[in-house]
Amino acid sequence: MQYQKKVEKWGCFEVSFNGIAEGNPFTERYIRATFTGTQEQVTVDGFYDGDGVYKVRFMPSFEGEYRFAVSGNFCREDVSNESTGGKNTAMVYEGSFTVTAPLKGNHGPVRTANQFHFAYEDGTPYYSIGTTCYVWDLQPDDRIAQTLESLKNSSFNKIRFCVFPKHYDYNLGEPRSYPYEGTPMDSSVLTKENFQEYNFRADLNDFDYTRFNPAHFRHVEWCIQQLQELGIEADIIMMHPYDRWGFCTMTKEQDDLYWNYALARFAAFRNVWWSLANEYDLLPTKTLEDWERYAKIICCKDPYRHLRSIHNCRPFYDHNRSWITHCSIQRQDLYKCAELVAEYRERYGKPVVLDEICYEGNIQHGWGNISGQELTRRFWECAVRGGYPGHGETYMSPDDVLWWSHGGPLHGESWKRFALLHQIMSESPGLGLAPYFNSWDDICGVPENEFMLPVKSYYLIYYSFMRPSFREFHFDDETEFEVKVIDTWMMTVENRGTFKGKFRIDLPGKEYMAVQIRKVK
Amino acid sequence: MQYQKKVEKWGCFEVSFNGIAEGNPFTERYIRATFTGTQEQVTVDGFYDGDGVYKVRFMPSFEGEYRFAVSGNFCREDVSNESTGGKNTAMVYEGSFTVTAPLKGNHGPVRTANQFHFAYEDGTPYYSIGTTCYVWDLQPDDRIAQTLESLKNSSFNKIRFCVFPKHYDYNLGEPRSYPYEGTPMDSSVLTKENFQEYNFRADLNDFDYTRFNPAHFRHVEWCIQQLQELGIEADIIMMHPYDRWGFCTMTKEQDDLYWNYALARFAAFRNVWWSLANEYDLLPTKTLEDWERYAKIICCKDPYRHLRSIHNCRPFYDHNRSWITHCSIQRQDLYKCAELVAEYRERYGKPVVLDEICYEGNIQHGWGNISGQELTRRFWECAVRGGYPGHGETYMSPDDVLWWSHGGPLHGESWKRFALLHQIMSESPGLGLAPYFNSWDDICGVPENEFMLPVKSYYLIYYSFMRPSFREFHFDDETEFEVKVIDTWMMTVENRGTFKGKFRIDLPGKEYMAVQIRKVK
Repeated sequence: MQYQKKVEKWGCFEVSFNGIAEGNPFTERYIRATFTGTQEQVTVDGFYDGDGVYKVRFMPSFEGEYRFAVSGNFCREDVSNESTGGKNTAMVYEGSFTVTAPLKGNHGPVRTANQFHFAYEDGTPYYSIGTTCYVWDLQPDDRIAQTLESLKNSSFNKIRFCVFPKHYDYNLGEPRSYPYEGTPMDSSVLTKENFQEYNFRADLNDFDYTRFNPAHFRHVEWCIQQLQELGIEADIIMMHPYDRWGFCTMTKEQDDLYWNYALARFAAFRNVWWSLANEYDLLPTKTLEDWERYAKIICCKDPYRHLRSIHNCRPFYDHNRSWITHCSIQRQDLYKCAELVAEYRERYGKPVVLDEICYEGNIQHGWGNISGQELTRRFWECAVRGGYPGHGETYMSPDDVLWWSHGGPLHGESWKRFALLHQIMSESPGLGLAPYFNSWDDICGVPENEFMLPVKSYYLIYYSFMRPSFREFHFDDETEFEVKVIDTWMMTVENRGTFKGKFRIDLPGKEYMAVQIRKVK
Repeated sequence: MQYQKKVEKWGCFEVSFNGIAEGNPFTERYIRATFTGTQEQVTVDGFYDGDGVYKVRFMPSFEGEYRFAVSGNFCREDVSNESTGGKNTAMVYEGSFTVTAPLKGNHGPVRTANQFHFAYEDGTPYYSIGTTCYVWDLQPDDRIAQTLESLKNSSFNKIRFCVFPKHYDYNLGEPRSYPYEGTPMDSSVLTKENFQEYNFRADLNDFDYTRFNPAHFRHVEWCIQQLQELGIEADIIMMHPYDRWGFCTMTKEQDDLYWNYALARFAAFRNVWWSLANEYDLLPTKTLEDWERYAKIICCKDPYRHLRSIHNCRPFYDHNRSWITHCSIQRQDLYKCAELVAEYRERYGKPVVLDEICYEGNIQHGWGNISGQELTRRFWECAVRGGYPGHGETYMSPDDVLWWSHGGPLHGESWKRFALLHQIMSESPGLGLAPYFNSWDDICGVPENEFMLPVKSYYLIYYSFMRPSFREFHFDDETEFEVKVIDTWMMTVENRGTFKGKFRIDLPGKEYMAVQIRKVK
């Protein structure tokens, strides 16, 4: 038995054992532990990590002393007991450790807060600015290093990515590793013309879907930890339909084994979000019952209640389901999506995260070829309405390395504008904005909890593609407001001073302008 | 009696008389004529044109000899008969004239054609590219000359404008003349701040709504004729809600007098379209019954069946009404309108004219401050779906002269792009395009009458704000197509040669590109 004596609050405690490597430890063995502190008692499954090693992980939510007791059938002694008929005498391993105060930058897991918004568990508001790099984690080391460097220099604080490799246009190569033991099909037969014929061709592969490749999962965990160090949430896509290896067409039993294994491994990392699927509706063999069963496994096996959602291609999943913590939306209309945040908030009563609203780029597909201006516009449209937008980049590249799937360097223009947006989001009083319907051509957010007040302490107005040369405002004659004019594209913020009553703000008659109005007394 | 001996087909024949000037000729006198050719017999009302002059106008639809017979109670002789009890002995004036072949550029009035489209009566297709200058006709001479010059240099072939003057922001001055005898309110009291308080203030004016000012109407007719010479349809807005003179709040009887007078005067000009109202739903005192009554007057008193529609602010009028020849639409959504042409076509089964989809400019109002790129984009979105878009310009100007209302010079960028669009519209086989749903990110038009064919003779695909670096096409292996790549903003057309079967067209990865695919064999 090996374990740390100290771990920070919301850190990942791990205890490991040497045990039985014979047979199929993934299906024949179990390991489980109960962790007891003064304010919580949590029982979690552990997992087999290969080479005879078994591990249990735990994320403590309180400071102070914790005890733990591990049981299972993973040790040679247990087995020898079993073989002699002593089934109930399985060994129990005990220990204790100290949970210290969280280190700088550790605010705990992200929770939904104030109904439509998010905050870290320590109360720090979290304004999500997401991106998508589906299989950045399964790339070679140098590209992963590049991706982490790009993320470090960006203001992204959430990234969507997969556990399983991706088979799709621009994604015909092999991943760095596979999640299962076995031999994949020969990918040298694939071309840009024929690759779609190989979708779902489990029969061309020879994988054992009951034997995980622990190295694959250890690597995904390393990536999760790297993101954690950058303050980025790992929005883990557990299943997806772009598959030639049979990972998305496994049996019910194989699926459940996967879910339990991934939960035992990933749940103790505080920056994990569960995205049940990318484009759940495109998985050919999964039914609504399957998705609900996976959700039940998560709810049962993740004691930390990480955020949970499921992402659509065409029809939305019913985000009213109680296990869904927030909407993870792909736009349904070529023209409107960010503009519909108010409707989605009303329909689902939950945080609205627009994970796919078309990517900046120039590929042939309509979901990946808008300009940096247009994507930035959609970000602001979304944010001002109290939603949380998501980015992706799909610029053609001679090496077929596109940020949306591979990570690597960022080529676009929109990502540079998100630091300002995040700053402005962070400046709103309280936690989060609510859409405010002042006039038909005002796109305006006000503090969520001031929605009913006649005069708000804050108005964030965005003019999108409109180009007013001035706008008039009319408040009461007492309240004084500070007015800033924001060029969201040129990234300038200009303080225009304080105003009250009826006043006029001159604007440059350009697209993509915003006005921030803050009550000063 | 004075009249021409010759008039071209679809020209305006006019016969005039000297008659009674005493009393109120507008309400007390009538003049009517029946025109008889070999292929039509038409009875129309004439009108009092002031100074004792009465006129009847007629637009012949066939070549050859016509006879006419005029009756009425406008002559001194008639009145003396009346006063002596000889009521049925009213004089009848007769004459004849020859209708010659139409001169060059005269194709007759525009009709709806092929259900969703338009053609001149001689069969020449008419692809509408409209603009709006609400009261260009009521400006001083030099500005009118400027407007006509601007129109001449543009590709606009329809213009919306009013008979009544406009009272609104940027429109506080006096018109060149009033449609009625009387004295208007003192407009020197108006400011940009208070003008809205004077809306509908009939009580501050002293107009006699039963006595027209014929000079006002003569001038409007001169404008209609100037447009005719430029090949531009006059989409005459008969009523509108931006009024401080009481013209939009007259009584039922006064309204009917106005409609009958205007019909008698304007109907014989071949380029007239009847727009019952701009923003009918904002007229405070008019009911649905009123609008239907006006429609009945038009249908009854316009024997030439000029096009008829009615324009909304918010709710559409029911364009399914049988008297409505085409939809005249103002967008209802800040984001989508041109993109909804297919839905409007399906809903109403008539030509869809998008007369207001936001104007290019930079004023404070959200309906008048989009970029030239964005308006051009909306034009293409509309046209490719088989609709007909409308332009307007609202650039701030030190003299408050804005094209949208006053005409004058054009300042924007979009209008320069419409010649290319009109050329491309004119190149479609048959008459007009129908929206074709090839794939979710294709915005494609095909010839209206080929909608059901598996392979069309023509595809016009528009990529809007999308920026594909290439697109792939897949037709059968026999049909050969000529492919042109159109940069709708830079106004270039590039012939890429002929293709068949599966082929790829490289594109520059820029916004606003289109691809034209035409069957060659």
